[in-house]
Amino acid sequence: MAHIELINDLPGVAGLFQYRPETAGPLNALAEVLLRGPNTLSRGERELIAAYVSGRNECLFCASSHSAFAAAQLPEGMPLVDQVRADPERAPISPKLRALLAIAGAVQRSGHDVTADLVTTARDAGASDVEIHDTVLIAAAFCMFNRYVDGLATFAPDDPAVYGAIAGRILTQGYRQPA
Amino acid sequence: MAHIELINDLPGVAGLFQYRPETAGPLNALAEVLLRGPNTLSRGERELIAAYVSGRNECLFCASSHSAFAAAQLPEGMPLVDQVRADPERAPISPKLRALLAIAGAVQRSGHDVTADLVTTARDAGASDVEIHDTVLIAAAFCMFNRYVDGLATFAPDDPAVYGAIAGRILTQGYRQPA
Repeated sequence: MAHIELINDLPGVAGLFQYRPETAGPLNALAEVLLRGPNTLSRGERELIAAYVSGRNECLFCASSHSAFAAAQLPEGMPLVDQVRADPERAPISPKLRALLAIAGAVQRSGHDVTADLVTTARDAGASDVEIHDTVLIAAAFCMFNRYVDGLATFAPDDPAVYGAIAGRILTQGYRQPA
Repeated sequence: MAHIELINDLPGVAGLFQYRPETAGPLNALAEVLLRGPNTLSRGERELIAAYVSGRNECLFCASSHSAFAAAQLPEGMPLVDQVRADPERAPISPKLRALLAIAGAVQRSGHDVTADLVTTARDAGASDVEIHDTVLIAAAFCMFNRYVDGLATFAPDDPAVYGAIAGRILTQGYRQPA
């Protein structure tokens, strides 16, 4: 049961968005530009960063959601998402994406953990400044979303089909505030 | 020196906002509604929560900024801000604000650290569900802002006068995207 009376039965962040539309607006706008806006990183790659960070924060709702969103937008689907979340060092991804995930993993611990070496490795692997910027901000944003969802003890469904259904909506409608 | 070439000399998050206006829009809108929008928590109290969390994350730019913004909007000024940041248990604040700061401190560590006991204590001290919600989201949002600012190694001025000047702008103009 959530720590506050949400007056709705929606799971995870969806219940919080409906409860407080004033904050849902900017939060959805942020997710939309970071995860779906024009970018040289694909939508699948950006959702993978979100899923990876959410897994490290042990946020079941966000990790399940963004894993489903990543899987739906990556040719390799859920097997790759599972490999990246379990062991990004050995997953079959580009050196650039591996280096960006290492930056995201540092951000998950602390902003101070992002070293010049991590950034140099990403740049040597072909990452642009904007890609490094966006990786840091996606990782930081999920340190917010994860704490928001778990800090209010919202409900996270166990059934993967629930997250698949949400993925279908995100892919067609994007991150929008519920009407 | 920042990890990426920001093409401007602005300190902290201001340089990042100018570098990437696409994300600055939603981030400023979020700060505006959380820290300055209509609320039963005063603007000073909300800035105090932001300053406290930023201090725990050792984010010099955010802690200095939001301490200045809190001090400018609380009758007790900077001495109270310093007391709260050093020892919220003993600072001369209301039991409700003390309980909300304890929730914010838990969120800073992990969303999972917000216990039913912490929430009950806040509610018994008079906190409403919306106040508990907003405290969790303010604390979570600063776990994002702090990681964003430090993860890209932005510049944080040492001179307190710089933060006082920014406070003057925030108090009159709010959190707005730079033109």
